[in-house]
Amino acid sequence: MGMQVKHLTGLRNLDAAAINRVLDTAEEMRSVVSSGGAKLLSDKLLATFFYEPSTRTRMSFEAAMHRLGGGVISMADAQTTSSVQKGETLKDTIKTIDKYADVIALRHPDAGAAQEAADVSAVPVLNAGDGTNEHPTQALLDFFTIREEFGSLDGLTVTLCGDLKHTRATNSIALGLGNYDVKLQLVSPPELRITDPIKEAIEAKGRATLSEFDDVRDAVPKSNVLYVTRIQKERLAQPEDYDRYKGSYIVDREVVDLAEETMLVMHHLPRVGELSEDVDDYPGARYFQQPFNGVLVRMALLALYLDRA
Amino acid sequence: MGMQVKHLTGLRNLDAAAINRVLDTAEEMRSVVSSGGAKLLSDKLLATFFYEPSTRTRMSFEAAMHRLGGGVISMADAQTTSSVQKGETLKDTIKTIDKYADVIALRHPDAGAAQEAADVSAVPVLNAGDGTNEHPTQALLDFFTIREEFGSLDGLTVTLCGDLKHTRATNSIALGLGNYDVKLQLVSPPELRITDPIKEAIEAKGRATLSEFDDVRDAVPKSNVLYVTRIQKERLAQPEDYDRYKGSYIVDREVVDLAEETMLVMHHLPRVGELSEDVDDYPGARYFQQPFNGVLVRMALLALYLDRA
Amino acid sequence: MGMQVKHLTGLRNLDAAAINRVLDTAEEMRSVVSSGGAKLLSDKLLATFFYEPSTRTRMSFEAAMHRLGGGVISMADAQTTSSVQKGETLKDTIKTIDKYADVIALRHPDAGAAQEAADVSAVPVLNAGDGTNEHPTQALLDFFTIREEFGSLDGLTVTLCGDLKHTRATNSIALGLGNYDVKLQLVSPPELRITDPIKEAIEAKGRATLSEFDDVRDAVPKSNVLYVTRIQKERLAQPEDYDRYKGSYIVDREVVDLAEETMLVMHHLPRVGELSEDVDDYPGARYFQQPFNGVLVRMALLALYLDRA
Repeated sequence: MGMQVKHLTGLRNLDAAAINRVLDTAEEMRSVVSSGGAKLLSDKLLATFFYEPSTRTRMSFEAAMHRLGGGVISMADAQTTSSVQKGETLKDTIKTIDKYADVIALRHPDAGAAQEAADVSAVPVLNAGDGTNEHPTQALLDFFTIREEFGSLDGLTVTLCGDLKHTRATNSIALGLGNYDVKLQLVSPPELRITDPIKEAIEAKGRATLSEFDDVRDAVPKSNVLYVTRIQKERLAQPEDYDRYKGSYIVDREVVDLAEETMLVMHHLPRVGELSEDVDDYPGARYFQQPFNGVLVRMALLALYLDRA
Repeated sequence: MGMQVKHLTGLRNLDAAAINRVLDTAEEMRSVVSSGGAKLLSDKLLATFFYEPSTRTRMSFEAAMHRLGGGVISMADAQTTSSVQKGETLKDTIKTIDKYADVIALRHPDAGAAQEAADVSAVPVLNAGDGTNEHPTQALLDFFTIREEFGSLDGLTVTLCGDLKHTRATNSIALGLGNYDVKLQLVSPPELRITDPIKEAIEAKGRATLSEFDDVRDAVPKSNVLYVTRIQKERLAQPEDYDRYKGSYIVDREVVDLAEETMLVMHHLPRVGELSEDVDDYPGARYFQQPFNGVLVRMALLALYLDRA
Repeated sequence: MGMQVKHLTGLRNLDAAAINRVLDTAEEMRSVVSSGGAKLLSDKLLATFFYEPSTRTRMSFEAAMHRLGGGVISMADAQTTSSVQKGETLKDTIKTIDKYADVIALRHPDAGAAQEAADVSAVPVLNAGDGTNEHPTQALLDFFTIREEFGSLDGLTVTLCGDLKHTRATNSIALGLGNYDVKLQLVSPPELRITDPIKEAIEAKGRATLSEFDDVRDAVPKSNVLYVTRIQKERLAQPEDYDRYKGSYIVDREVVDLAEETMLVMHHLPRVGELSEDVDDYPGARYFQQPFNGVLVRMALLALYLDRA
């Protein structure tokens, strides 16, 4: 039995039962990978259609499909090598691709693009990142990584640090954690706070608590998980503030060592300075484990949305 | 038994028997797709080598190969990511690729490139569009779409509308239809008429009749098929004529409703204004069915040219 | 049993036994290809990660993997479509990719990049060209081509002609041949001589002899193999010298006919003028055979480094 909704456009409308279902299925995928893959999807085709650069997400989706025996048709650079160049609308493109493949992983620079695609697609659309809106498969693999360590998401203190206004991954993480008994600590420069619609959606679910911080050092001591993301200098109203902010949002070993108990340090990568290499051998560092978990979670999603899990 | 000629460079030299053979084989592929694919080409490799942007044609060829169990090696953007950048000739490139793959689907900006490649290739070359010359696989999938509706190509009135001077797909459609008892109506601005060599090739076959129109409204009433393609503003001698032409060559629901009987409305896509979205729910609209048929036809071509059908 | 070292970063540290092992395994792959491929690596995934344009090397690696039943995830244009654009280090990228695939073929513009990747990768890294350093898989397929003709590399006179200072393929060829009883003749403009570290590495192995020439005509008569590579005009200190050099380093039929016995004429392609098309039907010309051999050799390398040969 697959997922009750046909497309994965975001975590906004996914409940804990659906999320747990994905994570449980991903756990089952571990033995599939270690035993050399399966033929579960050997008659299926995935189209990866990416309008923005990607290393991790596209290759991870494709690896997941291969591990399940499926085929892949890939558009790595739709902005320059596809009909987009000729001025085609997203809807027309999707109504074409859905004739070629059984499932579509879509990345697009516009918030809401995944929903727009889902509205017209005859096959499941899995949102691989749409503008500043959501990046649900990233959040799900992060939840898998956390649950792998703590057994559950409930009861944890999770800190998100960085540009929470523009980062789609942290939107999805926050929305997903809204289903659990989680203390969510949000650390960002005042002008890069998570947006109100996200806060409201979390509060509407009535489970997680939210608090906001200006300095990561204040949030770290009680954290079970510290999730780091980039501060994008060019998005600051006063770029010259960057150097001042730097001290408050850059995570190095000294910051990490402020945690009272060993916490998980996570990052969706790539990192460009906001997470020091001296954290790499911290016992809680998981950012090079996350990519492996991403394959398991995307295997689960492909199987579930193709109704084979 | 495969095709009698080794390469598919265009429809200029294909007769009705060969075309019907492709369409019959494509029909057989329908059950292959619905039963989850076949292993017919599981020991074969397709190279897609594209010197120009493409969504549909490349992904469709690759989907077709996967549905038959074959492998694909892909060069989506040869102009920038291949040895072309280093100044290699097409012939040298083909004499390399034909050592890697069992069949090559080639798109190239130069008219005649497919023939040039076929002249040196040790494996079948399937023309996926060469400059303003031909786009035979597009035409074959269009014929499949028409035959699916009417049972036969003979006896139909088919209208091609748009820039018939520069559009390779309409060249191939016209050349292919030249083998059948078809009334071919050509609608274009006077400066964008289909070229004389195409007309002469059709007349030499002695079956189809040709007539030319300035206004699509005059051609629609008797049409069984209306095939729309872009007017490319930048190719007009007097770009300011575009607005005047617009009324005569843009197809919207009002134009379509002039047909005496429900006609098929087709387009090879992408569309950028010349075919209104208000035609999408016209009962004869087939342009989002064509991509599915494209997979069937390309499956047939791969099987036939690899001598497995 | 696989290779004793985990990665293939170059031929500098490979001995004759290891090289012969690759060539013997490649010979076995001939029957695999002619019998339609094998399932030897059907549970394995290759990642091709290319930061520089490539036709031959990437497609050849991918064809090799397909012929052995394996899957491929591909990054053809990492410079523009991957996280490199966002400023990620090579090490971080590799520590991600090695979670997706079982083996990585890497091309990178920086000399030493393959070693840098190997230092952190959990899976084998096969160097597909790193800057001006090495291109070991090219050299191995060239050795296969030579051995196919002469039965052995020992006892031969091999001439390398062109820009020996900047060409990574000739570096690897020279370093590999250093393990054999070979007379190595090096023909280049004085300012484009092979570098001292390469010479010293060859001399340290104590088997091959080196001699240098200014004019290819002086080296051809005794050659068993003439290996041609480009003179890159833009790398000359005095570009105006190019026309003078041209006569001494451009290989045409007249030059080839100076050989006392039919010699092999080889080139790693693409060629852009330094090797005339009038050599194509010379009986010793092998540059369009090399690509086929490249598939066999890369099949061997994939099987060996994945411990399946």
